[in-house]
Amino acid sequence: MYRRVPGFGRQRVADRPPSSAVRAEFSTARVPDLPFISRSSPHELSRVMLAAHKVARAPLISPPEPSKAVNLEENLANAAAVAALIDHTLLKPEASRADIARVCEEARRFHFASVCINPYWVQLAAEALHGSPLRVCTVIGFPLGASQSRIKMAEAELALSQGATELDMVQNVGALRSGDKTAVREEIAELTALAHSRGAILKVILETCLLTDKEKVTACELAAEAKADFVKTSTGFAAGGATVADVALMRRTVGDSMGVKASGGVRTLIAVREMVHAGATRIGTSSGANIIGELESGYTAESPKPLSSGRVPGGEPDTY
Amino acid sequence: MYRRVPGFGRQRVADRPPSSAVRAEFSTARVPDLPFISRSSPHELSRVMLAAHKVARAPLISPPEPSKAVNLEENLANAAAVAALIDHTLLKPEASRADIARVCEEARRFHFASVCINPYWVQLAAEALHGSPLRVCTVIGFPLGASQSRIKMAEAELALSQGATELDMVQNVGALRSGDKTAVREEIAELTALAHSRGAILKVILETCLLTDKEKVTACELAAEAKADFVKTSTGFAAGGATVADVALMRRTVGDSMGVKASGGVRTLIAVREMVHAGATRIGTSSGANIIGELESGYTAESPKPLSSGRVPGGEPDTY
Repeated sequence: MYRRVPGFGRQRVADRPPSSAVRAEFSTARVPDLPFISRSSPHELSRVMLAAHKVARAPLISPPEPSKAVNLEENLANAAAVAALIDHTLLKPEASRADIARVCEEARRFHFASVCINPYWVQLAAEALHGSPLRVCTVIGFPLGASQSRIKMAEAELALSQGATELDMVQNVGALRSGDKTAVREEIAELTALAHSRGAILKVILETCLLTDKEKVTACELAAEAKADFVKTSTGFAAGGATVADVALMRRTVGDSMGVKASGGVRTLIAVREMVHAGATRIGTSSGANIIGELESGYTAESPKPLSSGRVPGGEPDTY
Repeated sequence: MYRRVPGFGRQRVADRPPSSAVRAEFSTARVPDLPFISRSSPHELSRVMLAAHKVARAPLISPPEPSKAVNLEENLANAAAVAALIDHTLLKPEASRADIARVCEEARRFHFASVCINPYWVQLAAEALHGSPLRVCTVIGFPLGASQSRIKMAEAELALSQGATELDMVQNVGALRSGDKTAVREEIAELTALAHSRGAILKVILETCLLTDKEKVTACELAAEAKADFVKTSTGFAAGGATVADVALMRRTVGDSMGVKASGGVRTLIAVREMVHAGATRIGTSSGANIIGELESGYTAESPKPLSSGRVPGGEPDTY
């Protein structure tokens, strides 16, 4: 079954739960000729889908697993699939309790992958999202990355204990630029091991706008060596955010082994599409509601009224 | 003895170590009719001067004590006096080991009050400044202030153990804006008690550009109740920095009881003068070298060659 999706052209939309045959079809679907697009075996895809379901406690649509998840048709097929890519983000220091509550409510409504908030609000978000498949994502050593490793560890430990299941840590940019690769790698490795021991995942924010291309490659390599789950472009607090070129470079560098999160300045459906085409498997943005709104606006003729049921049109479980 | 100081008009410059009579004269010197200018008793001033000397381990000119130190003549008299107001600051995440070393070297050369660097570099700065009167200032919960109190405490504990003697912490702006004054005050009180127990001081960064005037006043009151040493305008990472109006408001609110640090966008001698006139007793800037350069340029006719001796012209000990 196919449907016209604004911004994405004609897209395949499943109309029933995927059989093993459908999963096999997905796994070998024609995808653009980009070196970093994975073509998982049916077995691998099943495993990944099951794992994703388990990790995310059976969400509407699981966020793609960090690895082997760059499937344009699957990830951009409809509002629910796009929502499942988005870390719904509010990291402004002035965000109040009411703002955090609103973001959690929006995340429940749109079925985003996670809510991404500052550490102070982790407990509140965990409570607000209790019983939903939504994940609580928080930030570590954010946004400068220039705190001590043991403080980042303590921050991660506390966040995990309060309900965070995704940690977006800022690598030590200053140490990287001083040539101290060991310090950078060891810090990430410790945080990754901690996160994994609690069933959580770790993303490494490179802050690409501060790095040369060579440094970006080195940073990706260090994150991969440290077994982190994602590399992520930006904090959103520096001079620049995600660029298509940086996302593509990061994807080329990490291959299929990791997720790539594009964040910072990704505010439109077009931007999401570009980032995913370049290799992103997760999008960090505070504009998720608008992005899904853009996507929904194309569905009005054939979809239920947006949000009336608290669900995103096209976001029925059978679209997976 | 008087001297024309560019940007400040005719200024009193002491030509010998201050006798008790001179100290008494300083203490009752005519100052502009601003409500927040203190007129310390001779006894108090002696005590403060001695304390400042002790805290700062006999620097060239001690940074003014947080309280009762707004003396325009004294603080803006010459390059050494201005340098003693400045926290020489480098908080960019991309700062490398070499950058930190350069900043420490500049601080030694210009006799600034402190070097203000990210926590990762505290140990390096403490080593680089060992044996000098320079103080190591670092930042806590920086720049968002949205980490958990116990993480800020751990960060402070570690920084103090590594040689920091000034802690610039960011208040929890989100908690303040949620009306949770108790959380804001208690966090500051705990950090202040910790800092004081180690002979260090604590500054509270309000991030004024995110607050209404009413919230700025509340924040100052909470910091005062928590017995912090300074209120400070800005992190330099938000949309706005120090303004004359904010500094004046903060000084009016805290009265003589605390220091006021102006930071964020203070890049010229004129700006320093304005901030001090408005009530600032400390300036956070990465432009310290340029500011002292501006001041020095007016001294060339009657002063030794700038920096040739590693000392700032006009910065001889007998100017105090």
